Amino acid sequence: MKIVVDIYGGDNSPNAMIDGAVEALAQIGGVAPDFGIVLAGDEQMIAVRLDELGCSAASANLSVLHAPNIIDCDESPTAAIKRKPDSSLVKALRMVSEGEADAVVSAGSTGALLTGATFIVKRIKGVLRPALAPILPTLKGPVLLIDCGANVDSKPEYLRQFALMGSAYMQKACGINAPRVGLINNGAEAAKGNELTKSAHALLAATDEIVFTGNCEARDILSGDYDVLVCDGFVGNVILKHTEGMAHALTSMLKHELMSGFTSKLGAALSRNAFARFKMRLDYNEYGGAPFLGVNGGVVKAHGSSDAKAIASAVRQAYHYVEGGVTDAIAHAMIQSSVED
Amino acid sequence: MKIVVDIYGGDNSPNAMIDGAVEALAQIGGVAPDFGIVLAGDEQMIAVRLDELGCSAASANLSVLHAPNIIDCDESPTAAIKRKPDSSLVKALRMVSEGEADAVVSAGSTGALLTGATFIVKRIKGVLRPALAPILPTLKGPVLLIDCGANVDSKPEYLRQFALMGSAYMQKACGINAPRVGLINNGAEAAKGNELTKSAHALLAATDEIVFTGNCEARDILSGDYDVLVCDGFVGNVILKHTEGMAHALTSMLKHELMSGFTSKLGAALSRNAFARFKMRLDYNEYGGAPFLGVNGGVVKAHGSSDAKAIASAVRQAYHYVEGGVTDAIAHAMIQSSVED
Repeated sequence: MKIVVDIYGGDNSPNAMIDGAVEALAQIGGVAPDFGIVLAGDEQMIAVRLDELGCSAASANLSVLHAPNIIDCDESPTAAIKRKPDSSLVKALRMVSEGEADAVVSAGSTGALLTGATFIVKRIKGVLRPALAPILPTLKGPVLLIDCGANVDSKPEYLRQFALMGSAYMQKACGINAPRVGLINNGAEAAKGNELTKSAHALLAATDEIVFTGNCEARDILSGDYDVLVCDGFVGNVILKHTEGMAHALTSMLKHELMSGFTSKLGAALSRNAFARFKMRLDYNEYGGAPFLGVNGGVVKAHGSSDAKAIASAVRQAYHYVEGGVTDAIAHAMIQSSVED
Repeated sequence: MKIVVDIYGGDNSPNAMIDGAVEALAQIGGVAPDFGIVLAGDEQMIAVRLDELGCSAASANLSVLHAPNIIDCDESPTAAIKRKPDSSLVKALRMVSEGEADAVVSAGSTGALLTGATFIVKRIKGVLRPALAPILPTLKGPVLLIDCGANVDSKPEYLRQFALMGSAYMQKACGINAPRVGLINNGAEAAKGNELTKSAHALLAATDEIVFTGNCEARDILSGDYDVLVCDGFVGNVILKHTEGMAHALTSMLKHELMSGFTSKLGAALSRNAFARFKMRLDYNEYGGAPFLGVNGGVVKAHGSSDAKAIASAVRQAYHYVEGGVTDAIAHAMIQSSVED
């Protein structure tokens, strides 16, 4: 198995990407000797960092894909993909489309990654819209939220496919046996919803291949009672970003209160290990990136602020995607559960 | 000024409502001698509680509207409003529509309150859709989120009106001079969005009567950089409930970590005042209820879990609504800023 890591994009590029990839190689290489990493980016830059890390790119498991060009976050995704065939992202995706690699990990522009993956790696047969599916920590276990921004004007049938793809991922990559699927809605009752969710509810309820447990009100997103939560990409984007903003706001508020008195300061100092564990539970870096589901290969979007640890998590995630055969499982689900139009 | 408080509905009915109304009367009565409360519900039940509180309903400022019937949360709002003219909610709303009271506060069924207010109190001329607009605490000050559930399939023009109504409320009821309006969107750039927000962005940018500051990504909802945030009712409902769920999940996670070691437990004990202040900052009860904007009178939805303190806040909010002349301000804004179709 081979995973390409794009060294460009993200706040800590390129060192966090190179360091994280090397870290993941050491971890996964121990259990899967055929596992290999390809670093996509300027070969000189990569060589310097690998040298600093005491690694060699000449090993069978670690190679370099020379790609000097970078796609920036402020470029139009479609134009950038067309105009920069030598960019690390396009070359990385091409390796997957040509069967030379199994998955790509990138912390760069989300738009460029999703557009590039759709154009170059291409959709799995039957998939109407690939979807971005980040994983959130909850009170009990992780939950996959699909879609989170790839499709901001979804149709009911897209949501049905999101449920199938999300279930395939949680089953094959995360080992969850019968993933419980919820539909994000504005009320628990089946009749609740806007035009989209009312129609989607009926479709999901009629899909035998998933375990549909009904509507999920937003207050229960982090309850841990769902493995897959389905929504329109606009709504998913709002949920994801509000989760981030709220975690930040709440910890700021708490810090402010704890620092505003001698006794609380002392108390906070005594509780510092507990706070560190709390922070770790909220740390999205621990959970890797967001798989982009519905294309013919593993595509994992790492968070823009990823450090080396987060990149290593995202690479492990891509490894589990490939190892679990998620692409095939989604292709199979599309055939099994195709709807006559 | 007269405010009717519905004693039914909500988890702590009827005592929290009666106690909260009496508390608010004592607070507001001190500054506004003409202020009066009407308690809507079973007169016997109210008399017993007032007696326990050592109050008398015979005073000029505290009266009772006998209404033995209750609308439950699981009833169809439209049917319940029609079938139960003797319910506390319908009778309370009728007092407003007949000019005998200025505002209603209820912690009961949101659907019944919104439907009842629209049918009985009726829309302000020019208002396409009244909207529910709760207030969230942020890092800097409160923010009004409009709409949060009344309109789950909004049109761009509705969002423009939400901005006008929200601005009028923040200005007149909360004393914020030039309320900064943001549009909840999936990206900061003007061109971002789904069909609805792209069109709404153009409309908002062309509305001179508001201070439109552009798109607000969901991670900035709690930043305090906005006074009014505009969105479709489905999205607003998701944001509101996710905020609640997340506050609950994060405090549970933190509590769990703090309780899992002797030193952290000791630290937490020392920091207990800081935690109490933190909890208060998150406490929606402190911020009163959600005004329902766009109808001919004050209508405030108190949270279902309101205690007496929360009901008192909601009554104060209704007082500020009426005192500030929000209904007239919205009516004026509708005339000023009407769009030729």
